[in-house]
Amino acid sequence: MTAALLEQYRERIRTELDRVVDFWLKFSHDNEHGGYFNCLGKDGKVYDELKYVWLQGRQVWMYSRLYRTTERFHKPEILEAAKSGAAFLQKFARVQGSSGPGKCAFCLTRDGRAVKVQRTIFSECFYVMAMDELSRITQDKEMQADAESLMDRLIFWVQTDSSELSRPQLPGDPPINSMAVPMMLLCLVDQLTEGRTDVAEKYKDLSEWCVERILQHIQRDGKAILENVTLNGKELPGCQGRVQNPGHALEAGWFLLQYAQKKGDVQLQKTAVDKFMEIPFHTGWDKQHGGLFYFLDVDGHCPTQLEWNMKLWWPHCEALIAYLMAYSHSKEPVLLDRFKQIYDYTFRHFSDEEHGEWFGYLSRQGEVVLDFKGGPFKGFFHVPRCLYMCEKLLDGLLERQDS
Amino acid sequence: MTAALLEQYRERIRTELDRVVDFWLKFSHDNEHGGYFNCLGKDGKVYDELKYVWLQGRQVWMYSRLYRTTERFHKPEILEAAKSGAAFLQKFARVQGSSGPGKCAFCLTRDGRAVKVQRTIFSECFYVMAMDELSRITQDKEMQADAESLMDRLIFWVQTDSSELSRPQLPGDPPINSMAVPMMLLCLVDQLTEGRTDVAEKYKDLSEWCVERILQHIQRDGKAILENVTLNGKELPGCQGRVQNPGHALEAGWFLLQYAQKKGDVQLQKTAVDKFMEIPFHTGWDKQHGGLFYFLDVDGHCPTQLEWNMKLWWPHCEALIAYLMAYSHSKEPVLLDRFKQIYDYTFRHFSDEEHGEWFGYLSRQGEVVLDFKGGPFKGFFHVPRCLYMCEKLLDGLLERQDS
Repeated sequence: MTAALLEQYRERIRTELDRVVDFWLKFSHDNEHGGYFNCLGKDGKVYDELKYVWLQGRQVWMYSRLYRTTERFHKPEILEAAKSGAAFLQKFARVQGSSGPGKCAFCLTRDGRAVKVQRTIFSECFYVMAMDELSRITQDKEMQADAESLMDRLIFWVQTDSSELSRPQLPGDPPINSMAVPMMLLCLVDQLTEGRTDVAEKYKDLSEWCVERILQHIQRDGKAILENVTLNGKELPGCQGRVQNPGHALEAGWFLLQYAQKKGDVQLQKTAVDKFMEIPFHTGWDKQHGGLFYFLDVDGHCPTQLEWNMKLWWPHCEALIAYLMAYSHSKEPVLLDRFKQIYDYTFRHFSDEEHGEWFGYLSRQGEVVLDFKGGPFKGFFHVPRCLYMCEKLLDGLLERQDS
Repeated sequence: MTAALLEQYRERIRTELDRVVDFWLKFSHDNEHGGYFNCLGKDGKVYDELKYVWLQGRQVWMYSRLYRTTERFHKPEILEAAKSGAAFLQKFARVQGSSGPGKCAFCLTRDGRAVKVQRTIFSECFYVMAMDELSRITQDKEMQADAESLMDRLIFWVQTDSSELSRPQLPGDPPINSMAVPMMLLCLVDQLTEGRTDVAEKYKDLSEWCVERILQHIQRDGKAILENVTLNGKELPGCQGRVQNPGHALEAGWFLLQYAQKKGDVQLQKTAVDKFMEIPFHTGWDKQHGGLFYFLDVDGHCPTQLEWNMKLWWPHCEALIAYLMAYSHSKEPVLLDRFKQIYDYTFRHFSDEEHGEWFGYLSRQGEVVLDFKGGPFKGFFHVPRCLYMCEKLLDGLLERQDS
């Protein structure tokens, strides 16, 4: 029974991944200036030519990962697609500072001129992911060194001195522990250390630091995952302290579970599932209309984010990975039920049968409110990463069932 | 017939203004640290203690204006309310730079420590409005000088050198003409010059510059008002160039009309109504569900702002002022029809009969999506200014009918 169901999921997921890859290969490539168009309408037409560095990095990473690990994507056109984006990034992404290349821009014009630089680390993070993954294929030592040196700079910004980020130090705004930072760094460590024991050793302390920082977000006697906490793991005052982001918690959940599995840390595996997967499901699932809310206030106040009750594609992608990974690990039937519930909502609401790829933004009631396939915050990443990882997890599950 | 209708509007609007003033007097005052709480739930309860400088400035201005110009608000408690906010702002709003007080913070903690500084001019603008209006009552020359010197600095930032705003100059991000800037400055000139011919003379060139910059937003052969254009009035590429903000266009419309009436510029009066009021009505009104959209793309692409199809309180406030002012000026029945249509939607959907004040954020379908009365972007400003101005306009209309 279960095997048939899993087989059915795998079939649909494989087909969907193929369609998504085709969509971006067909519509997003800029053959004149290199790199990718990010802003694609529902039918793939470019509606804005700006190029978002973090989305460019994610796309390079995704193509490279598919090429390197999945037979049917091990094709020259996928590798060329990745290389084109990487070349664009290497040429234009980093803004020149007084002492050489500094931060990455957040956004570039079509021909590579910087439009905006953010005071955060995320453009740099995806630059590192992209270069590391591609250099694993090409064996380009220079590219790999570029990724590693930017990684070290990132760690310096986060752990030692953030002044290069140009964030003004203000007396009412002390540094906080925002979930995104340790999550992202843990993800990078996972990327950089794969198959490299020396690098794993180098980043051992960092990964422990990340895990500790992530676990600090378990609050309210273990009953809530809060998005922002103090540096010593206490609750922050006001809306900032009360905000919950179920999709982010779920993503942190599978990052943690993956790390804990590698380490063989049984206690951490349990925490990842019980806290970072079960809690956001119970708080985040909209019992009236289905789907996961984007933001919630732990005390039930109305969030101040205008989009709080919208259903976004990416929390659903992260939930699919999280529950399937957790099920794959423990075979607890309830985790497969969770996967099934998210899967049904997701494939019914987000996938576009007509033009391919997924819509990203639904109203609370589940209607498409923004119908583009790519935009400033939606690229070739969450959807294909989800489908890719679910396919691999299902391969593993079905293989074990066969044997 | 019309007189009876106008009388009915005035009655409702007066009652509503009284309720709104009462709400903020009752719930927003911080008797411990001074200034106002901005984040008030639907029943007035404080759900976050952060104090937003531009909202503090707006509240000082609104109390002062009501006190100075409307008999029933000429009460000590209203003046005290204004003074308390002004004292808080004078003490805490401006961030100390190396050479004395510099930019205003965007946001402060309850006890006045800076949380965030924006790279824009709007916190400073409302600081100027607040201090000018209050000093007209108190005859505080120092406060008035403070307002004027910050105004001169603002003009310097906008027209000569923006480096003090700390906006990095990036090659892909040339300066643009964003509607908000000339609008805001024209509003400030109106504030500072009232009853002062010498100041009016000083800012004559600036107001002409503002009008010219606002008119540059008429695009597409006079058929569209675009929110962002180049410095020489051409259309910008991409989403940024195509975005329309009907509420903002309507607000610019009544700023222009007010200015043109003072100047006796008949052509500009016509432009204000035909372009800045009629166009946003035709493009912005949701024919399916009623209400004004928040953002639209002039070519019909989906806007990238997640809240594009929501109905916000403030565009409706600005529309009420615009159409009533335009009707008051020309007596064109169609303008009263526009007012009526917006009025009916607004009072049916935004006003909260139970707790007073207005909801700010509705879904496209008109349901309340965020139920707070005050938040980071909603304070004691658009609702009371709209009610106050409509009451004055109706007073004028009914007076002329009587005579």
